[in-house]
Amino acid sequence: MYNVGILIWPNAEVLDFCGPFEVFRNTGDLSENEINVFIVAKTNEIVNCMGLQIKPNYTMEDCPNLDLLIIPGGNSQWAIKQDFILNWVSSQYPKVSHLLTVCTGALIIAKLGLITDGMIATTHQEGIPYLIDFSPNASIDPNARFTDNGKILTSGGISAGIDSSLYMVKKLWGEELANKVAVYMEYDWQIKTPVMKNPLSED
Amino acid sequence: MYNVGILIWPNAEVLDFCGPFEVFRNTGDLSENEINVFIVAKTNEIVNCMGLQIKPNYTMEDCPNLDLLIIPGGNSQWAIKQDFILNWVSSQYPKVSHLLTVCTGALIIAKLGLITDGMIATTHQEGIPYLIDFSPNASIDPNARFTDNGKILTSGGISAGIDSSLYMVKKLWGEELANKVAVYMEYDWQIKTPVMKNPLSED
Repeated sequence: MYNVGILIWPNAEVLDFCGPFEVFRNTGDLSENEINVFIVAKTNEIVNCMGLQIKPNYTMEDCPNLDLLIIPGGNSQWAIKQDFILNWVSSQYPKVSHLLTVCTGALIIAKLGLITDGMIATTHQEGIPYLIDFSPNASIDPNARFTDNGKILTSGGISAGIDSSLYMVKKLWGEELANKVAVYMEYDWQIKTPVMKNPLSED
Repeated sequence: MYNVGILIWPNAEVLDFCGPFEVFRNTGDLSENEINVFIVAKTNEIVNCMGLQIKPNYTMEDCPNLDLLIIPGGNSQWAIKQDFILNWVSSQYPKVSHLLTVCTGALIIAKLGLITDGMIATTHQEGIPYLIDFSPNASIDPNARFTDNGKILTSGGISAGIDSSLYMVKKLWGEELANKVAVYMEYDWQIKTPVMKNPLSED
């Protein structure tokens, strides 16, 4: 079982987490891979995200071990000040195989110092100045659709999480399956290659 | 206040309804338009959509008058046999200004006989044979990203609901705002023009 946990909080951006949710659910449905995609929040109470009311599948306390942690954006100036978010992400990071941010989710891991020297990262167009500020020694690329640093991947704004999730599928299970998912979603998946720390180290 | 109601049911396809939700929420946030986007379901109980657990904003009984009704796809072979869905959509149709289907949501309105002679409609690639069967006198276009018949609009599969929703924003409030929303969502909005019943009758 491959566990994909998507963290949300009040006013997390809807498409930031629903795009990846859709990609990984379809990946499981269209292949033999056993993939469990679920929403994690602080407690099991309903979380209001821009009016969309989500009941989390798991809390930060009871969620299964994650293979992939996805951190969306939205309400990020609030989120980066919340100890419960910073502490939980910090505690998960050493245990997960990959961590993928979407949109201003990158600011949370930047705040934690996880975007370090030599890494390449991106975020939503409006988050770029903050990302530069939080990660002065990293290379911040406002034009990247997504970046791959091996364990940490970052995506541009909102819809970019669909592309980076499809890329994760390609990275984990091959391009044929990723293409199949994109075709099923009728998604015009154009950007299949990340801006990477070292283009020869991955893929 | 412009009311956008999105109907869901168990295993409605996540991106089918979250894509339009994101578009209309951002349209309100990025303009002076007062737009209320909400999820409608049979009752106020949590609806499990492919594992994503949604608490509806309104029930079929208490939802406000709609300007735009959006009907997603997903679990459509079940949905087209549910009287509560067929009856509610049928009762809403005369009252709304526009009805937009995404993916196999088109099968529901086709089953109701709303896709009539001379109309052009589309759906998810896997729904095309059923749509032809249910609407023998309509023109079914498997290659259309979305279609516009004036009051009734239909979209292709899953991600196509983002394009058709952006088109609805363009139709209602102008292309400048629609482009602004697409840019904010960092969405590569390529297909801005529907296949229409009569290219001169709209837009």
